[in-house]
Amino acid sequence: MFRTAAQRFSVASLHRRVLLITLRRFCNKAPRKLRVAELLSGTGLEANVQGWVRSVRSQKANLFVDVNDGSCLQSLQIVASPELNDPLLTFGSAVEVRGILKKSLHPKQAVELEAEHIHVVGECNPLDFPFKIKERHTLEYIRQFPHLRGRTNAFGSLLRIRGEATWAVHSYFKENGFAHIHTPIITSNDCEGAGELFQIEPSYPQNSQDENFFSVPAYLTVSGQLHLEVMTGSFSRVYTFGPTFRAENSQSRRHLAEFYMVEAEVAFTRSIEDLTEVMEDMFKRTTEHVLDRCARDVDLFHTHYADVRLPHKRAYDLLIISAAPAPPLTSACSASQWGCDLKTEHEKYLVKHCGTRPVFVTDYPYRLKPFYTRDNRDYPQHTAAAVDLLVPGVGELCGGSLREERLDLLRARLEEVGLEDTYSWYLDLRRFGSVPHGGFGMGFERYLQCILGVDNIKDVIPFPRFSHSCLL
Amino acid sequence: MFRTAAQRFSVASLHRRVLLITLRRFCNKAPRKLRVAELLSGTGLEANVQGWVRSVRSQKANLFVDVNDGSCLQSLQIVASPELNDPLLTFGSAVEVRGILKKSLHPKQAVELEAEHIHVVGECNPLDFPFKIKERHTLEYIRQFPHLRGRTNAFGSLLRIRGEATWAVHSYFKENGFAHIHTPIITSNDCEGAGELFQIEPSYPQNSQDENFFSVPAYLTVSGQLHLEVMTGSFSRVYTFGPTFRAENSQSRRHLAEFYMVEAEVAFTRSIEDLTEVMEDMFKRTTEHVLDRCARDVDLFHTHYADVRLPHKRAYDLLIISAAPAPPLTSACSASQWGCDLKTEHEKYLVKHCGTRPVFVTDYPYRLKPFYTRDNRDYPQHTAAAVDLLVPGVGELCGGSLREERLDLLRARLEEVGLEDTYSWYLDLRRFGSVPHGGFGMGFERYLQCILGVDNIKDVIPFPRFSHSCLL
Repeated sequence: MFRTAAQRFSVASLHRRVLLITLRRFCNKAPRKLRVAELLSGTGLEANVQGWVRSVRSQKANLFVDVNDGSCLQSLQIVASPELNDPLLTFGSAVEVRGILKKSLHPKQAVELEAEHIHVVGECNPLDFPFKIKERHTLEYIRQFPHLRGRTNAFGSLLRIRGEATWAVHSYFKENGFAHIHTPIITSNDCEGAGELFQIEPSYPQNSQDENFFSVPAYLTVSGQLHLEVMTGSFSRVYTFGPTFRAENSQSRRHLAEFYMVEAEVAFTRSIEDLTEVMEDMFKRTTEHVLDRCARDVDLFHTHYADVRLPHKRAYDLLIISAAPAPPLTSACSASQWGCDLKTEHEKYLVKHCGTRPVFVTDYPYRLKPFYTRDNRDYPQHTAAAVDLLVPGVGELCGGSLREERLDLLRARLEEVGLEDTYSWYLDLRRFGSVPHGGFGMGFERYLQCILGVDNIKDVIPFPRFSHSCLL
Repeated sequence: MFRTAAQRFSVASLHRRVLLITLRRFCNKAPRKLRVAELLSGTGLEANVQGWVRSVRSQKANLFVDVNDGSCLQSLQIVASPELNDPLLTFGSAVEVRGILKKSLHPKQAVELEAEHIHVVGECNPLDFPFKIKERHTLEYIRQFPHLRGRTNAFGSLLRIRGEATWAVHSYFKENGFAHIHTPIITSNDCEGAGELFQIEPSYPQNSQDENFFSVPAYLTVSGQLHLEVMTGSFSRVYTFGPTFRAENSQSRRHLAEFYMVEAEVAFTRSIEDLTEVMEDMFKRTTEHVLDRCARDVDLFHTHYADVRLPHKRAYDLLIISAAPAPPLTSACSASQWGCDLKTEHEKYLVKHCGTRPVFVTDYPYRLKPFYTRDNRDYPQHTAAAVDLLVPGVGELCGGSLREERLDLLRARLEEVGLEDTYSWYLDLRRFGSVPHGGFGMGFERYLQCILGVDNIKDVIPFPRFSHSCLL
């Protein structure tokens, strides 16, 4: 793609190059049009690097400039003759550097770029720039500058981790035969009858004020589950991964108005354990991928920002406990009684009680669960085939259930709540080749909070939206 | 994940198995927990298959049932003794079949399942079911049943193609060093000042009617471009792939209220050709992937539904023509004059004129383009560094431009349109380490229309939303 005489490399690729990572892996990551001869020629290669200045140290004999381009946490050290210095070469400025890649004598880095030419592309006045050289800003401070925070080490790391985790989730499902479905954002059903919905309308006045744009009231989705269930009528395994919305008037560190959900649905499944196995597997595989690809980025969070830290990689032995009939739940939380929903403090207690590790809780009281949850018919306690995954520091990470596939039971339940007309299409799914199935959803930001130990959910999403805040 | 004695396979994996695809590829696609011994043992394997009945043929000696599970277009043929027949075994019913996998003598298939047991899991009354056995329904007819249309061959194929194309887009960007950014759906900026926005508000009454939930008016995004530009201040290459929205009151076959956009932004880029190269590369790589993985699915569209068909794979030699100064544009379209925007009919003429192949059109009149477009300063004609990719049957598929990175020019333009306060954060991006950059967006549904030859955009998205329609 680039036609300059000197090849252009990202900082990450320069690091990798000297670390002798295999040719194949290199080709997958580096900018295209690298010739094998150049890859194999070792140091001495002419290179052209672009990025943003992270530090400038002017010494008598040498000028040292660290350049970062977002491709990894490390910066590339530029070594130059002092006469290449420029008053515009400041922290935060954008530069292009041409030079020769050499083996570095410094133990901190394998390679450095001996500069022939440094060009300041974009100035940055250090007095005005909100981030200061060599200062570790708090996440609260960084959050105030949504348009510039990618420039900090912490948020740069977060974005790389988020990207790799996203990729790992998609890879996990693809490798396990799940079809990816783009479930809709705009929907005319309010899923669980939850009250906290956003309604949408065109911002310009309609011809007729009474008429809705879609002819019916339309909302932002709170879950893609029902749409995935539609697809489970023809695909054995489906998933979706996209934004969902809650109009929750909360400033809490646990809630966003717009957040990402991973949701999956599996057909021909009769046991809650089929679901917990997918949840556990996805959790582990995604986390392993992130720890492999972003070790330094994760380490930055664990070292400087984590409140709760999960045990070492591959040490997540997930437990399954039952919410029914009572112990260990009610024995653990004296305030909690059978038939009551778990509160955040109960969830926390449970996680701690089980050794501060992820815990599945199954078989919730039937009457607490939405109409689509499968009835266990285990009178007199009467539970539903539902499961939650609780994790340290976060609480509920995943929620799932088997779905009621039996037409007569489902119809009776919908009639009871007066929704049989609204959900006639949903009843149709049980009339034409219905199958036992189930699924779950995972809050993606909560997942990131969990593996990184980040306290505030606003720090793990590029552009947080919550009540009274919609910056940019 | 599955603990039944007989292993469970998807129909696709059974087909693949006998087609002797390599072990590595097989392992990536098939359900987990397949043992190598089973993979290598050839026919004679005991298997357990679940899916939906696509046909039932009862003959004197044998019962033939075709079972499809959505994993591929082909169905698996079940051969059973006539006494395994069941009145509930009808077109559309859901079944579980246990049997022995055998080499098939029929030339249409490599393998068939000799059934030991057939269990109808979910009935389907053929009189009520809207799709009829062995009938090719039109896309218009299928569209009326959004909750059941996945059961048709056409829509099943579309969903598989859409999934593979989505995967290919993500793979392309990952392999080329682009960071994936989740740009927000809810935004307080209206991007280009376009009028056709959806506004959002909580559906429940607020405490104060005057107060917005977000303290400012909030809209559904029309583009993630400006948010990507934010990230281009710290990552050299970024992209996003998600839903975007237009409140266009149109029933046309070309518009949706909710559609998917692929958008990319590249830093340190000074030429429009850097962008056209990414667009072309992404288009070709994605299309090659889809044609490789979904050959039969694509063929179904080309055979039965395509109006316009693109030339054979690898035959897309994209042309670049300039909209400035005049020819071939104004000579081609007598109604079009320099300085006027291209209308759909002009686009169509251009594509045809160039041999019914994709065409890039560059350097549009400056005053037609939004404030962020880079000024070419080529007076007197005065163009902007913008580019569109036009394709047969669809018209505009991609639009992109270099962005104005020069603070003084950008500020002057924003002052001219009175938006300098609204976009003070955008000006900040040019104050702190600004770099030359550019990007583009591609309508994902239009891309699918283009490669499949599908006339109506509503047929290439799982749940179409447009004015007066928001089903499910």
